Amino acid sequence: MQWEQVLAPRMGRMKASEIRELLKLLDQPDIISFAGGIPDPALFPVAAFQGALTAALAPGKADAALQYSVSEGYLPLRQWLAAHMTGLGIPCGVDNILITSGSQQALDYLGKLMIGTGDTVLVNWPTYMGALGAFNAYEPVYDRLDPRDNRGAAEYTAKAAEAGGRVKFAYLSVDFANPTGETIPRADRERVLDLADDLGAAIVEDAAYQALRFDGEAVPPILALEIARKAKTGGSIEDCRTIYCGSFSKTLAPGLRVGWVCAASPVIGRLVLMKQAADLHSSTLNQMAIADVAANLFESHVAGLREVYKARRDHMLAALSREMPKGVSWTRPEGGMFVWITLPETMDGAALLARSLETERVAFVPGRAFFADGSGGNTIRLSFSRADEAAIDEGIRRLGRLIAAD
Amino acid sequence: MQWEQVLAPRMGRMKASEIRELLKLLDQPDIISFAGGIPDPALFPVAAFQGALTAALAPGKADAALQYSVSEGYLPLRQWLAAHMTGLGIPCGVDNILITSGSQQALDYLGKLMIGTGDTVLVNWPTYMGALGAFNAYEPVYDRLDPRDNRGAAEYTAKAAEAGGRVKFAYLSVDFANPTGETIPRADRERVLDLADDLGAAIVEDAAYQALRFDGEAVPPILALEIARKAKTGGSIEDCRTIYCGSFSKTLAPGLRVGWVCAASPVIGRLVLMKQAADLHSSTLNQMAIADVAANLFESHVAGLREVYKARRDHMLAALSREMPKGVSWTRPEGGMFVWITLPETMDGAALLARSLETERVAFVPGRAFFADGSGGNTIRLSFSRADEAAIDEGIRRLGRLIAAD
Repeated sequence: MQWEQVLAPRMGRMKASEIRELLKLLDQPDIISFAGGIPDPALFPVAAFQGALTAALAPGKADAALQYSVSEGYLPLRQWLAAHMTGLGIPCGVDNILITSGSQQALDYLGKLMIGTGDTVLVNWPTYMGALGAFNAYEPVYDRLDPRDNRGAAEYTAKAAEAGGRVKFAYLSVDFANPTGETIPRADRERVLDLADDLGAAIVEDAAYQALRFDGEAVPPILALEIARKAKTGGSIEDCRTIYCGSFSKTLAPGLRVGWVCAASPVIGRLVLMKQAADLHSSTLNQMAIADVAANLFESHVAGLREVYKARRDHMLAALSREMPKGVSWTRPEGGMFVWITLPETMDGAALLARSLETERVAFVPGRAFFADGSGGNTIRLSFSRADEAAIDEGIRRLGRLIAAD
Repeated sequence: MQWEQVLAPRMGRMKASEIRELLKLLDQPDIISFAGGIPDPALFPVAAFQGALTAALAPGKADAALQYSVSEGYLPLRQWLAAHMTGLGIPCGVDNILITSGSQQALDYLGKLMIGTGDTVLVNWPTYMGALGAFNAYEPVYDRLDPRDNRGAAEYTAKAAEAGGRVKFAYLSVDFANPTGETIPRADRERVLDLADDLGAAIVEDAAYQALRFDGEAVPPILALEIARKAKTGGSIEDCRTIYCGSFSKTLAPGLRVGWVCAASPVIGRLVLMKQAADLHSSTLNQMAIADVAANLFESHVAGLREVYKARRDHMLAALSREMPKGVSWTRPEGGMFVWITLPETMDGAALLARSLETERVAFVPGRAFFADGSGGNTIRLSFSRADEAAIDEGIRRLGRLIAAD
């Protein structure tokens, strides 16, 4: 069978994620891994899930837990999320919430919803590589979004028209972003709102790490800022162009694949149709388990995560100060899981990884895959979420030695 | 926000599934429902799932059950499935298996893999409406596949070229098909293989109901027939154009959303990349639970399902013979969940449903949505999977009365 002749053109843009391939390395016991933005499994609320699953399969509930369910998602979970979002400054109801199989699925669906071949998506340089991977299936063109470069809407629009489409949305990872660990300041969020207004474009706000703030002051979600603007003239979330994507993967557990979208109800309605056609609904049982665990211990559990991850971030930043040679710089995240390293311009992150795995047995993610234009060769991403303090000390010591020897 | 201006062209083809909307009606206690192809929840193996989930969250396993996992799927489940498929006449290994979130997701991914805008997909008239819904997102043209109409490959190819693309694949629901309950005979499966060979096209074999045969002789899967052809010249599944889609939704439980694709490894490899980009992986916990339950009781559990559903089918066929007026005909399925009714040509299934819900309180699915060309107005689909014998007697009695009065 000549498969090439039956493939869709979009398949030319699908390629393996370096991060996913690296996950396979984590099983090798002598590797110190700063790769993969994955939670420390020692922190999973196992007993709470055990109780929630047992309750979901109790007489009177099991019939529903194991059965088909509505594409919108499990109503008590949507109710909890509507209240949760309201607490974040985003007053909304259940009609503004769709449950997805992780926020990765939300990114795929939003690409499918809006991107026609040749349309433009605005992204940061660098941005979450999984978002680029999801969007690529719909064959967009990327343009660089930098809220401080003072390019006006007309310039973006002209460039998009030249590429054969229009600017459909801006995608931003907003808090302790994957991969940089940086948070978009409030003033820049407001600028993005202004720009999107001028463009008539949507905003996709990826808030996967939002709950994991260790210090500093919380910045309101873009959707909260937009609702505040609309509220001045009697408007609400129904008038907003921002689509918020959330996830339980970094707070409760990624293995259950439960995330959500919060947006104006016409957007949710279209995404529900899409989900009906694409996978009917997310696992009923898992939605029930997440709803139970979230209602019982979300705040206290996340407070515990923050404490552990904060100590690891502090430890990694101290180790970097101690071990990194001159010419290397890095971010100082206020939360999340990542520190972003900029190496001297002559160095290449992918080549460094190859040497590191061979000689120092330290894993991390080369930065180039996070840049839509393939630049950023001299950057790497380190995650501090899964390494204990001794591993951080030893791993950063080895990495510093390797970089200094280059 | 003017959402229309940021929507992709494909969104013009997304519409609500009548079946999914009807599911909402099933909660009304006085409705006798023959709608929805959904299992009887009284038959779910609840205790087995309870045990499997408890085992998956035991110390030493919980870390993996709640964590991210590989996009290919949980290895022990893929191993069980490779053995299961081999038992169906499809010798294969784990590299030929991808776990999906139900076989609905497999249909979405296969559309995404192969359909470029304007390409042709061959389908039966009628066919599974959920397949049409999944494929529609990729903007295909449909052409009618009837293995007995003697249209040659040249005719299909010319028509596809006229529509602006080529024939990418034929989609067939093979056993006790949704919606007709009919099984494609072996000779027709061989004809479809010949046609696909001539077209250079793939075959998507939807075997969601395959395990639910009550009587008659099993027909080999198209993929098994193709492997048998290739084996004569030393070939294997790696040389086959048929892509088999399976599901645990009709045998163990739909609420966990676990299905699979079995195909040549280059197809599986591309689908793994797609799944990475679209939702990372299916629920780790649910895959572990299904693997455990399948290994322990798949055969015995399915034997029990067959017995119950066979009795309901027999009861429904007897009731139809007793209650239906002249001019109404129906299929006699050898398994599955559905009987397909053809009404007199002047009658309309959707209008009948509206009257039925109002006066007789009997639900079913009008047939038109199963036809890619919108024909089939005088057909309806009845499911016998969820109704007990008294409800079948009463429901068919009322339906016969309604049709006779028309």
